[in-house]
Amino acid sequence: MTSTRQALGEQESALRGRAGRVIPGGMYGHMNVAAFSDTHPQFMRSGNGARVVDADGREYLDLMCSWGPMILGHNHPGVNAAIVDQLGRGDCLDGTSPLAVEYAELLVDTIPAANWALFCKNGTDAVTTCVTTARAATGKRKVLVAQGAYHGAVPWCALRGEGIVASDQEHLIHYEYNDLASAVTAAEEAGEDLAAILVCPMRHDIKRDQEMVDIEFARGLRALADRTGAVLVLDDVRCTHRLDLGGSWEPIGVRPDLAAYSKPLANGQPLGAVTGSDALREAVRSIYVTGSFWTGALPLAAALATLTELRKGEALPIMERAGRRLRDGLAAQAASHGFVVNQTGPVQMPMLSFADDPDFRLARAWAEAAATRGVYLHPWHNWFLSAAHTDDVIDAILARTDDAFADVV
Amino acid sequence: MTSTRQALGEQESALRGRAGRVIPGGMYGHMNVAAFSDTHPQFMRSGNGARVVDADGREYLDLMCSWGPMILGHNHPGVNAAIVDQLGRGDCLDGTSPLAVEYAELLVDTIPAANWALFCKNGTDAVTTCVTTARAATGKRKVLVAQGAYHGAVPWCALRGEGIVASDQEHLIHYEYNDLASAVTAAEEAGEDLAAILVCPMRHDIKRDQEMVDIEFARGLRALADRTGAVLVLDDVRCTHRLDLGGSWEPIGVRPDLAAYSKPLANGQPLGAVTGSDALREAVRSIYVTGSFWTGALPLAAALATLTELRKGEALPIMERAGRRLRDGLAAQAASHGFVVNQTGPVQMPMLSFADDPDFRLARAWAEAAATRGVYLHPWHNWFLSAAHTDDVIDAILARTDDAFADVV
Repeated sequence: MTSTRQALGEQESALRGRAGRVIPGGMYGHMNVAAFSDTHPQFMRSGNGARVVDADGREYLDLMCSWGPMILGHNHPGVNAAIVDQLGRGDCLDGTSPLAVEYAELLVDTIPAANWALFCKNGTDAVTTCVTTARAATGKRKVLVAQGAYHGAVPWCALRGEGIVASDQEHLIHYEYNDLASAVTAAEEAGEDLAAILVCPMRHDIKRDQEMVDIEFARGLRALADRTGAVLVLDDVRCTHRLDLGGSWEPIGVRPDLAAYSKPLANGQPLGAVTGSDALREAVRSIYVTGSFWTGALPLAAALATLTELRKGEALPIMERAGRRLRDGLAAQAASHGFVVNQTGPVQMPMLSFADDPDFRLARAWAEAAATRGVYLHPWHNWFLSAAHTDDVIDAILARTDDAFADVV
Repeated sequence: MTSTRQALGEQESALRGRAGRVIPGGMYGHMNVAAFSDTHPQFMRSGNGARVVDADGREYLDLMCSWGPMILGHNHPGVNAAIVDQLGRGDCLDGTSPLAVEYAELLVDTIPAANWALFCKNGTDAVTTCVTTARAATGKRKVLVAQGAYHGAVPWCALRGEGIVASDQEHLIHYEYNDLASAVTAAEEAGEDLAAILVCPMRHDIKRDQEMVDIEFARGLRALADRTGAVLVLDDVRCTHRLDLGGSWEPIGVRPDLAAYSKPLANGQPLGAVTGSDALREAVRSIYVTGSFWTGALPLAAALATLTELRKGEALPIMERAGRRLRDGLAAQAASHGFVVNQTGPVQMPMLSFADDPDFRLARAWAEAAATRGVYLHPWHNWFLSAAHTDDVIDAILARTDDAFADVV
């Protein structure tokens, strides 16, 4: 079966033209599709469940979940009802909403390593707050980070882009993910000046296969932090809630001192969170961190609805089941079309790469064919599943991806 | 007339107790009332127009507008309608909402110095993006900032708090606000390494009287930037929209190269914006900056509704009229009660301090009495007015503040 590459829609073309005049590069950051596709729409009008609709009314089965946030699916009735209900009372007020207390209690009850919680707007806010807290707690400066790990898009941690000066990252020392010896060496380099060990729950660097954490590595980092007095910070922003509601390392029994969460906390409403241990209460009180909208009530109402729904216990098994079904289906399709592919990471956060495809030519062609066939996925960033990814959705996706494999030449 | 200091309500007390267990310090950042009052409620349940209601159902006439965001008043029907309308379609999607283009066009049409716009979540995001862009544009590092000016709550710019290391602020050079010679000296210190001059449209440092900008100082900074090749960055976050929709320095004819906005852009929904000149298009494209929710549709829908309403031209005159009425009334009251007070800054962003009150004992006593009387205001941070501050609201506020002056002993 063959397919013509999807042409840009009329609305999409018009919007790109207008955006090119008033938005830098037409779009910036991870939302800019120019880097990864000629056929993915830049603009979207609506979403429902596991479906999104672009500016021209074309519908896509969604494997990105807005890069993570939509854990219950787009336009979720329960979350929307919570938002509308709160909207009639107030959003951003002079004082904090009582919802902040309720939600902090629910998070602390859900995450065994958490004794307290603090809210912000972005993952970057949360990770930055963790590092500042660790420095306040220890009075030290150096932070160990894994080479290539994404921790946010501000100069102290950005992986690329102009405008970063040497002093921004002066106190970062790099180790290799899953290589405990390299972390020990990095800690030795920090010497008496080690404030924190920052780590993601798995390796999910862009443009490389995902890699699950080695349990001994995780335990080793915990021991290294204990031995040196450093603060162990888990950057759980991307994995938040999908692997385990109690925190992504809870299943392996390694508890961080501080953790950063965001993405799906409020099913798409802007919210980040930091949680920490009792030992760090005074340190986090001693830093100054705030934002105009950090305790706004709408995202908190959405987060309460989201976590309450997730705690019922149905969503995570649905995502896992969907992920297995998708992985099995894609594996069979790739083989039948004669492609060798690697599917890595947890099934709820799928990633597919092609063997011998260092410049992502095949991945890009397949992703573009998938978009043309009506499946929205990314060629070199992991995808995300939601509770809206039922069997029939996965089967519909697989019917289209099979055609997309046939399109790749 | 005398008044007993308001006791904490039952709900407020209970919430404080619960918050103390699960939120650092019971609350963090600017939202923490512990620093400024024994009687201000920490928690609020709802707001409507110029009124807010605390957890115990006590109503306050609001002079803080949630520290700026509520420019049209709480629970604004038009903004709420825009939010609900968009909510039914989608909020955070895989691609950007077309609303981002519409809103960028409207901002560029509203702000003469703006050729493009980029959106984020907080004022801190916006200012940080400006500095990174300036460094990318110039390839230089030093940033001139006014001593004591607030530009955000992250380590590179924070004014206080633990966890900040020397390298975070290594490339800041300080000048005195409204002292051009000090800025020239700072620029000389930067020498060939000057990237940006960062300035607020007026001096609104915490715990000191506000100070309007001296026009010659503003013009001098513009000339200094032009002479040195530095980027002039206006941090308009706090003053956004209230002084002039075209930017706070538009009335004096001094246009920045980059500007940061936030607070009331979306009448309480989380949104920040950076605007800039054509000359900086390539520089802003070269930096990497993003956030999971930066192009979420709900805040953009709220911002479009807010700016469309503001452009009708009624809101700013209402705020100015309210500000004059309030200032005149407070001046008369203070005199009649035998207090010497200073009212400073633009009337739409009122500030009142007591003469010979270096430790804010009188200011605090008066603010606490006002809270007890049902007016929410701050003892040492500027206040904000909104389009909901009609004459009858101001008169009701004045009736209560008169009693509050009587309470101060």
